[in-house]
Amino acid sequence: MNTFALEPYLARCQERVNRRLDYWLTQQHPLAPRLLDAMRYATFNGGKRVRPVLAYAAAEAVGGQASQAEDVASALEMVHSYSLVHDDLPAMDNDDLRRGKPTCHIAFDEATAILAGDALQCLAFEVLTSSPSAIDDATRLRMIRTLSVASGTQGMAGGQALDLEAEGKSLTLEQLENIHLHKTGALIQASVKLGAMTFADTNPQQLKALDCYAGAIGLAFQVQDDILDVIGETEQLGKQKGSDEALAKATYPAILGLQPARDLAQELCAQANLALESFDHRADPLRALAHYIVSRSH
Amino acid sequence: MNTFALEPYLARCQERVNRRLDYWLTQQHPLAPRLLDAMRYATFNGGKRVRPVLAYAAAEAVGGQASQAEDVASALEMVHSYSLVHDDLPAMDNDDLRRGKPTCHIAFDEATAILAGDALQCLAFEVLTSSPSAIDDATRLRMIRTLSVASGTQGMAGGQALDLEAEGKSLTLEQLENIHLHKTGALIQASVKLGAMTFADTNPQQLKALDCYAGAIGLAFQVQDDILDVIGETEQLGKQKGSDEALAKATYPAILGLQPARDLAQELCAQANLALESFDHRADPLRALAHYIVSRSH
Repeated sequence: MNTFALEPYLARCQERVNRRLDYWLTQQHPLAPRLLDAMRYATFNGGKRVRPVLAYAAAEAVGGQASQAEDVASALEMVHSYSLVHDDLPAMDNDDLRRGKPTCHIAFDEATAILAGDALQCLAFEVLTSSPSAIDDATRLRMIRTLSVASGTQGMAGGQALDLEAEGKSLTLEQLENIHLHKTGALIQASVKLGAMTFADTNPQQLKALDCYAGAIGLAFQVQDDILDVIGETEQLGKQKGSDEALAKATYPAILGLQPARDLAQELCAQANLALESFDHRADPLRALAHYIVSRSH
Repeated sequence: MNTFALEPYLARCQERVNRRLDYWLTQQHPLAPRLLDAMRYATFNGGKRVRPVLAYAAAEAVGGQASQAEDVASALEMVHSYSLVHDDLPAMDNDDLRRGKPTCHIAFDEATAILAGDALQCLAFEVLTSSPSAIDDATRLRMIRTLSVASGTQGMAGGQALDLEAEGKSLTLEQLENIHLHKTGALIQASVKLGAMTFADTNPQQLKALDCYAGAIGLAFQVQDDILDVIGETEQLGKQKGSDEALAKATYPAILGLQPARDLAQELCAQANLALESFDHRADPLRALAHYIVSRSH
């Protein structure tokens, strides 16, 4: 039984990455202050910092220190933040609100939001090259490659493109999984991988086990998101319409039914924990995170 | 007198980088074919490949080989292409045509164009980490940093943000120069720098001289663009309206007058050549390019 106290751990990790993100944004030359304001707005958006937390926890699981993973954590969050800004644009999901706050293109304007996303993406790569930590050059290059592959046509952007193509179509479970594996899964896997790579002694077996873990929680994260959408629409809005809309979209509950979707999330959580079998107590944060991902209510 | 035959050189360089861009795009896993199509459309847009040509020429000027600079050239063109796709979007310049062809968001759709730009940006960084050439890891990291700084808040994206803020305002010569130094100049400087960095023996003095060269031609490029806008609008459209519109925008001819703008372009070309004084005949392509930039008619 995992009795690891996750809440204070999450709070520590969030504070840690927030401080580091602030450092990198403050480091930028204020050539165009409005652009920097938009980047800061997009980055400090009340997010749960799941990707940074995974990076810290993975670094610790393999015997490293969270302090070594600060820049990796920042870079991951910058990529995630840029993707949210671009996803929210009128031409994409056309969302005016995110976590109850105006989205970046509403708070600023569309052109600034596009540029802020673009600049956050390349800042992520700048951070990985400039990080003052003791990571050797070959590892840094592997990290940059891992992050770019996870963000590009074979990862996040590719998954987002698949999602656009799927709009209004009915999908098989396999097709839905393919979208999520890329759209959100790739960056979650990269988070765990990059965190582990910050510790020089990580061996290939450990990396492989962590990859299995990350694959399972990446999907679990999406399944739970879909479940929360259905429950949230029904319970919070107190009406069926939202729920119907959610069901018209290809989601796990729509394809599988609500209870089988819940079972799937639990099964993926168990898979993730099984992948960590050979790790000692230092992987407890990762174990607790898997549980958190499928039991969170928002 | 520089008698270097630039036309065949340009054609060779263009063919070289086109082949390499094709290679990298073909290498991408076809997860979302439409996204890849849009990236290819954006990359093969009939561009003059000024940045790749500068990278090849800079590599040769310091004693290196163009073949070493292929991936650097590809990465630079990917960043340039992505910036054009995003600049053309309705929320930015709202251009339907580029070089007589529908822009990416017209040929595809806005969401795909945003994603194609995003994916091209991260592919550029992937290319710099994956390049099979013999460049050492420390140099690669410096290249990635140079490219990301040139693309971000302190470079292209920052300059574009300044340009957005300046819309409809009257600018001083200094403010106009500040926009262009970043919006287009930073990537042109990075092109020369990255090209030179592909050759291991490049010394800091050479890099400094090339930086002066690149600074001058970067500005010259923009001055000539502005001149061509005014001339083109007047001569090709055969009416004054376009010209008036061009003059209402902050441009070099609008601020300085047409002939002084022409003189400035020539002066910048002379500055660029002066910076190359200590280089031998291997810098002839760079010298010819400076001349080409201020004498081109389109």
